[in-house]
Amino acid sequence: MDVFQTIKERRSYRSYLDQPVEEEKLQAILEAGRWAPSVMNLQPWKFFVVKNSDVKAKLKAASQETLQTIYEASGWKWVSKISLEFMTEAPVIIVVAGDPQKTGADQFLPGRGQGYAYSCCAAVQNMHLAAHASGLGTLWFTLYETGKVKEIMNLPAELDVVSMIILGYPVQPEASMKRKPLEEMVMMIE
Amino acid sequence: MDVFQTIKERRSYRSYLDQPVEEEKLQAILEAGRWAPSVMNLQPWKFFVVKNSDVKAKLKAASQETLQTIYEASGWKWVSKISLEFMTEAPVIIVVAGDPQKTGADQFLPGRGQGYAYSCCAAVQNMHLAAHASGLGTLWFTLYETGKVKEIMNLPAELDVVSMIILGYPVQPEASMKRKPLEEMVMMIE
Repeated sequence: MDVFQTIKERRSYRSYLDQPVEEEKLQAILEAGRWAPSVMNLQPWKFFVVKNSDVKAKLKAASQETLQTIYEASGWKWVSKISLEFMTEAPVIIVVAGDPQKTGADQFLPGRGQGYAYSCCAAVQNMHLAAHASGLGTLWFTLYETGKVKEIMNLPAELDVVSMIILGYPVQPEASMKRKPLEEMVMMIE
Repeated sequence: MDVFQTIKERRSYRSYLDQPVEEEKLQAILEAGRWAPSVMNLQPWKFFVVKNSDVKAKLKAASQETLQTIYEASGWKWVSKISLEFMTEAPVIIVVAGDPQKTGADQFLPGRGQGYAYSCCAAVQNMHLAAHASGLGTLWFTLYETGKVKEIMNLPAELDVVSMIILGYPVQPEASMKRKPLEEMVMMIE
């Protein structure tokens, strides 16, 4: 699929079919993550591919608690109404973890030091695009508490959980979310 | 260009031709950034497209100072040898700035609150891919001090400079940087 078409047509899905992801497609998606650019080519990422139902259920339960935490802190009513069924519905959750020690020169600059996470996000976006081009759907999921996820998955202490990608065949096509016009986000300095 | 091919063939370039970027290509690259996913679809990014020679020269001079800061803090000899000529050689620098207030629910979670920056990084990666598919080259540049860039460009106080993209026609094809094998970065939890 053409890269411009893929970028424009990618959507976020919150409902998935009970249908496994073919191993070949999964490998191609991970391979797309592997080729992301990273600070000093440190490739500071690990991709934990969760297919295990128990682990997915525990991640969902933990995020359910997290929603409550967010609701209490924010007062945002929509947070209390979010359904997390997709976390067990989807056949795969890719937990993307990064190593904060592999962050390059930005560790020496004020207010910086997130290069490892930014690199992980490039890998995340590559995987979103690769999934879409493979006929799959994804959700960039961030409603979790790092400590809880690390405990459930027994992740190495030095890693930070940068993002989760929910992955599977979507139930139905999703309408496009609107974007602001380009003029509102671009400033020309000529 | 096919999305998998684009992802795999994209490179980082550090030498550019004295040749402008066609307006149509630039618009398509910015449009690719516009379609990135973002937390709560907040689209927390601004793309400052720097073509002005004086501004590019000032950014280069500031980053030259930053290299010295990094060298003194790190003792990394290679830092003192980096040439930043590409910052004035390249016809365009896209400064990607994000609004930390547009970060969504992660502001309420311990150790988080970088959602705005992660969204910007998805836009950055989309722009890298779009540039490559357009026959252009890019560099994900991060050797700058936020305060200095904001001062030179007179950016709104609330914005954070997340990244810079150096953009232009590369002098020559670049060899692929090696990647670790997929087995080293993927863990299956089945």
